[in-house]
Amino acid sequence: MRLDLARIRAAREVIDPVFLDTPLYRCEALEPVLGCAVSIKLETANPVRSFKGRGTEVVASRLAGPVVCASAGNLGQALAWSGRGRGLDVTVVASRHATAAKLERIRALGARLELVDGDHELARERAATIARRDGSRLVEDSLDLETCEGAATIGLELVDATPTFDAVLLALGGGALATGVGHVVRSGAPGTEVICVQPAGAPAMTRSWHARRVVTTGPTATIADGVAGRRPIPEVLADLLVVADNAVLVTEASIITGMRLLLEHAGLVAEPSAALGIAAILEDRDRFAGRHVVTVVCGGNVDLSAYRDWVR
Amino acid sequence: MRLDLARIRAAREVIDPVFLDTPLYRCEALEPVLGCAVSIKLETANPVRSFKGRGTEVVASRLAGPVVCASAGNLGQALAWSGRGRGLDVTVVASRHATAAKLERIRALGARLELVDGDHELARERAATIARRDGSRLVEDSLDLETCEGAATIGLELVDATPTFDAVLLALGGGALATGVGHVVRSGAPGTEVICVQPAGAPAMTRSWHARRVVTTGPTATIADGVAGRRPIPEVLADLLVVADNAVLVTEASIITGMRLLLEHAGLVAEPSAALGIAAILEDRDRFAGRHVVTVVCGGNVDLSAYRDWVR
Repeated sequence: MRLDLARIRAAREVIDPVFLDTPLYRCEALEPVLGCAVSIKLETANPVRSFKGRGTEVVASRLAGPVVCASAGNLGQALAWSGRGRGLDVTVVASRHATAAKLERIRALGARLELVDGDHELARERAATIARRDGSRLVEDSLDLETCEGAATIGLELVDATPTFDAVLLALGGGALATGVGHVVRSGAPGTEVICVQPAGAPAMTRSWHARRVVTTGPTATIADGVAGRRPIPEVLADLLVVADNAVLVTEASIITGMRLLLEHAGLVAEPSAALGIAAILEDRDRFAGRHVVTVVCGGNVDLSAYRDWVR
Repeated sequence: MRLDLARIRAAREVIDPVFLDTPLYRCEALEPVLGCAVSIKLETANPVRSFKGRGTEVVASRLAGPVVCASAGNLGQALAWSGRGRGLDVTVVASRHATAAKLERIRALGARLELVDGDHELARERAATIARRDGSRLVEDSLDLETCEGAATIGLELVDATPTFDAVLLALGGGALATGVGHVVRSGAPGTEVICVQPAGAPAMTRSWHARRVVTTGPTATIADGVAGRRPIPEVLADLLVVADNAVLVTEASIITGMRLLLEHAGLVAEPSAALGIAAILEDRDRFAGRHVVTVVCGGNVDLSAYRDWVR
């Protein structure tokens, strides 16, 4: 296990407070629909509209030179924000098919944006090439401990809450959120089940968790761009095997229903990845019936035209 | 001036923390459209989706018996929430034309809901009658100091922020938010302009502020149900005359554009009253150009079908 509570507490000290102590509240309006008590941990009400600022603040606080990352958009936006505040030269490599609203914000925050004709895995390769060429620090989401430790500070805020939760539902992509929050919850609230949720259209990490070894997949097919990887990182899988009680897959239809429920009953604009927890409840109501579940609404960056179609 | 900083600090101590220390952040994505620096103070990410919980917590903390209020919906929902937590018997009187989503939440929170065939002023009269008949405590929004002091705790959080703001834009209805926050800002950040914003279709308090005496109006005509009063309360006007630098009216079209901009560029579902600040910037760009403005997004309870039409 690469994660360590003392380091996570230290990470919290270098994160801009605008990303910390985010809203955490019961959302009773969702409960008749979902059949269980539901609390929301809201990570969208900040300058980059996702939880990724927690990690990029930790990365940037330890850097003086140029930095590069591959991103589906949220990490890039957060790194651009954190880097700008510290005068760092930031390059973001993204797929040309990434959410336009995210790409636009990366540019507006002054980062250099490089687009690749391919998916996130190709962007990762290109970012590594740039780092070697320019001598930049390569930030690898979920592999780099700072990204996990930043995400893990959400866990500190969850385990401080009363009452405690029966289960925490976490979006699973590269694994920084799931391993980071999972580790803190496992340590600080051992009675709380840690459940990771991934789209059935991008199941690599979930399959790997069940197989207890890295399983890669072919091209992903999901609207949840923030969690659409094909090649799990072995070190992250090892941590996930320690902290997760389960990893489940959900359909695109449930993700869309989850987004719609969050809008209708909670007044929240969630991006697809942020609706994975609600989707998991929808797909297994019996499992959660009568329990108190908390889910991290981890991002709210959507292209409004696509979003309107989803929640129509 | 009825408001007092020591009492406001004491009020903060009895408010459930779920309503306190709400997100406050620069929203740069709005800035190219608005031509000034804009920060958001977000009061929608809590169990009642508006700032009113701050005031009803203060009210309920001092009560043991039944309580009644007239409400366009947000005060009633908040009072139902605060009363339920303390085992109080809560009655809410609302207009039959109030936002259906708000009425549904009041019922779901276990309050008795009484509907009147008329506007908010008729609901106020009916609530007073019920209070006399039943010996209940009548909560009068903006007249009762607890409602102003609760709202004023937002001001404590604003004046603690760095950097300071050039102007704070506040929705103006009965006046609790404007006088409460205005008083704290006037005391703690004297360089910050306090600007109140009301719909042109419900201009009674704004006209009263300019006339320096109570001016009542005929029926209101605005979608901003949360601020649609016709008969300003003299004591509240007296406070507003002390704390406000200006009071302005905005059109329904600007309110709708404000809601759309908050959705498109900030990912926030704001009810019409919560978009008044953005509307004021839209109507007087020159006044705010290059300055740093903060606006309180004070509520997010909308009927989704109406909301969809507005932001289409």
